[in-house]
Amino acid sequence: MSQPNVSEVDVLIIGAGPAGLMAALWMSRCGIKTRVIDRREAHVRVGQADGIQSRSLELFDSFDIVDKIWKESCHMVEMSMWNPGDDGVLRRASRMSNTIPGISRFSQGVLLAQHRIEGVFLESLAEYSNVEVQRSIEPISITCNPSGAENQSAYPVKVIIAQIVTERSPYPIVNPASNGAAGFDGQRKNRKLNGIQEKPAPEETIAAKYVISCDGAHSWTRSQLGFQMEGEQSEYIWGVLDVIPITNFPDIRTRCAIHTASAGSIMLIPREDRLVRIYCQLSEVKPGSDGRFDRSSIKPDMILKAAQKIMSPYELEYKHCDWWTTYQIGQRVGTRFSAHDRIFLAGDAIHTHSPKAGQGMNVSMQDSYNLGWKLALVIKGIAKPSILETYESERRTVAKELIEFDQRFSRLWSKPPAKDSADEGGVLMKDFQHAFQKQRLFSSGFAVDYGPSILTAKDGIVHRRETTNGAGCGPKTQDSEFQMKSQQHLATNLPLGQRFPSFRVINHCDARSWHFGKLLKADGLFHIVLFAGDVSKTEQMQRIYGFTDALTNMATPLVQYSINNSGSQKTRCHVADVLTIHSAPRQQVEYLDFPELLRPFDEELGWDYDRIFVDEESYYEGHGNAYEGYGIDKVRGCVVIVRPDQHVAWIGGLEDVDSLETYFANFLAASSKR
Amino acid sequence: MSQPNVSEVDVLIIGAGPAGLMAALWMSRCGIKTRVIDRREAHVRVGQADGIQSRSLELFDSFDIVDKIWKESCHMVEMSMWNPGDDGVLRRASRMSNTIPGISRFSQGVLLAQHRIEGVFLESLAEYSNVEVQRSIEPISITCNPSGAENQSAYPVKVIIAQIVTERSPYPIVNPASNGAAGFDGQRKNRKLNGIQEKPAPEETIAAKYVISCDGAHSWTRSQLGFQMEGEQSEYIWGVLDVIPITNFPDIRTRCAIHTASAGSIMLIPREDRLVRIYCQLSEVKPGSDGRFDRSSIKPDMILKAAQKIMSPYELEYKHCDWWTTYQIGQRVGTRFSAHDRIFLAGDAIHTHSPKAGQGMNVSMQDSYNLGWKLALVIKGIAKPSILETYESERRTVAKELIEFDQRFSRLWSKPPAKDSADEGGVLMKDFQHAFQKQRLFSSGFAVDYGPSILTAKDGIVHRRETTNGAGCGPKTQDSEFQMKSQQHLATNLPLGQRFPSFRVINHCDARSWHFGKLLKADGLFHIVLFAGDVSKTEQMQRIYGFTDALTNMATPLVQYSINNSGSQKTRCHVADVLTIHSAPRQQVEYLDFPELLRPFDEELGWDYDRIFVDEESYYEGHGNAYEGYGIDKVRGCVVIVRPDQHVAWIGGLEDVDSLETYFANFLAASSKR
Repeated sequence: MSQPNVSEVDVLIIGAGPAGLMAALWMSRCGIKTRVIDRREAHVRVGQADGIQSRSLELFDSFDIVDKIWKESCHMVEMSMWNPGDDGVLRRASRMSNTIPGISRFSQGVLLAQHRIEGVFLESLAEYSNVEVQRSIEPISITCNPSGAENQSAYPVKVIIAQIVTERSPYPIVNPASNGAAGFDGQRKNRKLNGIQEKPAPEETIAAKYVISCDGAHSWTRSQLGFQMEGEQSEYIWGVLDVIPITNFPDIRTRCAIHTASAGSIMLIPREDRLVRIYCQLSEVKPGSDGRFDRSSIKPDMILKAAQKIMSPYELEYKHCDWWTTYQIGQRVGTRFSAHDRIFLAGDAIHTHSPKAGQGMNVSMQDSYNLGWKLALVIKGIAKPSILETYESERRTVAKELIEFDQRFSRLWSKPPAKDSADEGGVLMKDFQHAFQKQRLFSSGFAVDYGPSILTAKDGIVHRRETTNGAGCGPKTQDSEFQMKSQQHLATNLPLGQRFPSFRVINHCDARSWHFGKLLKADGLFHIVLFAGDVSKTEQMQRIYGFTDALTNMATPLVQYSINNSGSQKTRCHVADVLTIHSAPRQQVEYLDFPELLRPFDEELGWDYDRIFVDEESYYEGHGNAYEGYGIDKVRGCVVIVRPDQHVAWIGGLEDVDSLETYFANFLAASSKR
Repeated sequence: MSQPNVSEVDVLIIGAGPAGLMAALWMSRCGIKTRVIDRREAHVRVGQADGIQSRSLELFDSFDIVDKIWKESCHMVEMSMWNPGDDGVLRRASRMSNTIPGISRFSQGVLLAQHRIEGVFLESLAEYSNVEVQRSIEPISITCNPSGAENQSAYPVKVIIAQIVTERSPYPIVNPASNGAAGFDGQRKNRKLNGIQEKPAPEETIAAKYVISCDGAHSWTRSQLGFQMEGEQSEYIWGVLDVIPITNFPDIRTRCAIHTASAGSIMLIPREDRLVRIYCQLSEVKPGSDGRFDRSSIKPDMILKAAQKIMSPYELEYKHCDWWTTYQIGQRVGTRFSAHDRIFLAGDAIHTHSPKAGQGMNVSMQDSYNLGWKLALVIKGIAKPSILETYESERRTVAKELIEFDQRFSRLWSKPPAKDSADEGGVLMKDFQHAFQKQRLFSSGFAVDYGPSILTAKDGIVHRRETTNGAGCGPKTQDSEFQMKSQQHLATNLPLGQRFPSFRVINHCDARSWHFGKLLKADGLFHIVLFAGDVSKTEQMQRIYGFTDALTNMATPLVQYSINNSGSQKTRCHVADVLTIHSAPRQQVEYLDFPELLRPFDEELGWDYDRIFVDEESYYEGHGNAYEGYGIDKVRGCVVIVRPDQHVAWIGGLEDVDSLETYFANFLAASSKR
């Protein structure tokens, strides 16, 4: 083996699936030097995940990439339940909206093939950075020197990589015309791959400050780190077909739950381009004595036959099959999500479960959405490395909730309908329907509620362990405690720890109506949202001046609009920006009445006219009733800190600037302070 | 000079501005062999038009290109009026919405530089066709042999073209950093161009079936044809500045009308990227004895000084100027719009006026939007050439209305406010405000109302002159008359001749809410919109079956879904498609209850699930109340024919299939009939 090359990088991302690319998007927006490697030779263009939650659409919007996905995708608006009637014949039992109306500006979840979503991510990466995915690259070893973990100029993680050189592609891209004859599933593919390095490959050592590993359910990184997955495998085996169905089943274009007395269940998911994904229980396939089943025994026509039996008396055929697979339901969650807060696992590498709730890709992307900005702030020297602890504390809770949810939810799918309430082997259809209604909040991604931490000022004590480099005598560990404090009662509908919801507001200057959430872009900045109240009242406007004066005079220079007058807006504030929503009649206040901090000036570009908004009736799009929606007093207002990932971090009054400063001071690096 | 090459093309488009490219879009969608030539060396990237009406946004949507434009553009929501108060000091007199709320799904007009709009057109052309714009190409001669005008296999128009070869570019693209120092205006540029052919250029003869000439206000084609422009020049001279203003004027981000007692008027138009277009009256510049003024005497600082005077006591400065120009208000309309219905003029070549109402680019694009599909249908042998007469009859009326509107409107701008109602030299501000409110319908593009013609079955007699090729003895001319008949009372809010408005409806199969107008794509098809009424009633469903049976058995095969099962949807129906909106409760009717004509089947793709819609409450987007909006009886429904350009063509009852057939038979070519 030749002497390996060594190259340094801030962040190495292993795996270019949705979780890995979401992390890369953060790095591209925050200007972090990043490499992405993937063992797959090509961008796989069929199959895999397809469901996109409303919350994920909001994340896409924060990176300004939602429009294409929204347009191309299939919008899944409705959910139907089909059960046997008293005569044993299948009939539609109920219909409901697939998500909770009003919960997001992206009302419905949508469906689009994973590769199309990845495609949009890749286009955006190319537009904002020079980050490219290097394919056919496999990591060979990974080591981390924990003693340097607090030293931000060190590159403590060493990853040796090798190019995979094979005689022939191990990834037969399914030709749609072949009707899935060359079908395979993602899991088998990954396993196959581990064995094939038929030729010696050139090697390179990457020295990284941080590694984010999104290398899937059979994560190489996880196994190298020796982390375990906890959980269990069920006896239920399901098949999946992506086909263009030819059928007289009337609800083929809505999400359907079809239960039969003894033939098993189906979930139908309508897709783009007339495709439908059929999740079909294979009741006749049972796992062997080792708890596993023989995957090779199953072919698409077996799945079709099982589906035909379940959907009878309706007919089901297809001429075009895009992809198919089989899986055994199981739920597992990783014991640990990071090593030394230098190597992080995300996505399927730390949670696996059944695909039917459409959670996998979403929760995976949200993992790295949670992690990306934290890493970027630490790498840029803005935040202390201790904020990285919150990745595991926040996301492991979500992963465990997901696993519990999936256990309950998939059991409801795999059992037959109960004959009566005494039938314990079955599922009462009213319980199923109730569970479905309940799951909509979880499935849309809005149930996530981060606990108190250094980044979320929920009332309570937060413990933190900080490691510093002692002078020549190794790292020192120091424990500290914070008394976190917020005034939740000032914004009763903005629960701390949850994502900041969106209501329509009006731009004060040009009267255009905006969904406020659309303005919270993923650029790594905290957003200080000033609910300025009724500024037509002199006393209230004085409070606003008091607030901006205090903010300007803080020891921590959060909001630095005038650091560099010739620079672009983006580089001028490095920790937080301020957005204002007032509730005075727009006619009674002029833009220039507000303090300059709220409407920064640039010598070339003049005033920034996109920072002050009004909660008022719009000309064309009704009244957003934002103050009411957020639960905030229309006269006195309040101040809310929103994290770069849009979760509510702190709430206080206009006079609580000390507490606001404390919130930031707790985690800002010393170099950020005056 | 060498022997010229001759090449044949169905359509030659002269001029790649918005009108020319809009025509090219039609050709790309209808598969017509097309060439586009433009004398400009490069795509000009500053200045020119910027206002986009709501109606134009609908046209863009019909070509599926609206999203980018909507996103990039500045949305002009509000209009403010500023006048001197009793103390002589400028003050805001009123505010109103810039367009009429609810008039379109694109509520507000938007602003975006013309070159960006052209850019989106060019991208779409590249996506749908191999049509490219050939630049630096100038036509040298144009001739048409009218005797072959009815012969669709002939190429009667011969255009000789030459490449413009110059030593140096005559088009200094303004460098934004130069602050407009190299500024020029579009009109001067065109005139300069006529003189510069410094080297001999290679020549080619294009033999075209049809020519669409969109070569601007100084149209070469118009002058070759000897057509005149009628109208007059005013004494009012205005300047235009595209700048990033630095100002304390509070309404700088809204459309403003600023009148002063003696310093003149300003119209402000906010633009994308912090730009503002300032239209400023130059009261001190007067035309000479020839009625024209010396353009070269005006420089941007003169316009700025005039603007500062008008906006005083507010301050106005800028550091960045994108573009500037001057113009003298005048209104002219072409006497003729076509020669032999083989050469057509569109856009500025047939109407010029002042730019302030934001009409120029819009009316120009709408000219060729009106023409494009007609030409395509004739070239494809579907429609008789006589439909081409309607281009001039429909668009000349619009042009004349535009000119009249602009005369009234620009006079209101250029005169000072009246001191009192006896002051005839001035304009009463309440008249101005009233005129503004009235102009919003016109300015949005929805006032267009095409008269009765072979394509618009408004009650009355339509005369038509048809020219046929006599056997060996030259063309024969034949006059004929049609008794056009519609039942306007069946759809009281769908005025015949006007554009079909849009309301939200729900897809019957997947419950997704759609703006119905979004479904009327510009593919050259007529849309037969079947308002099926309450199909949960047996009697009404029987009427629907009666309608589809009659449609299927018509002598004119309008709707041919099953011509070619293996072809794509697009090629299967060549004249019209059928879209259904019913008003029955969605729960009470199944998709397969409808006749197959309304939900065509394909052997590979199954049923088409995107053809039947419901007027019902949606899960997320309220109730569209489409039947009420269209003024149609919810039980009995009706049938509406919508032209490919979305204008209402015919209205009848479900039993009026004979009349429907007559509508089509009047203009369909013999080859289209059985």
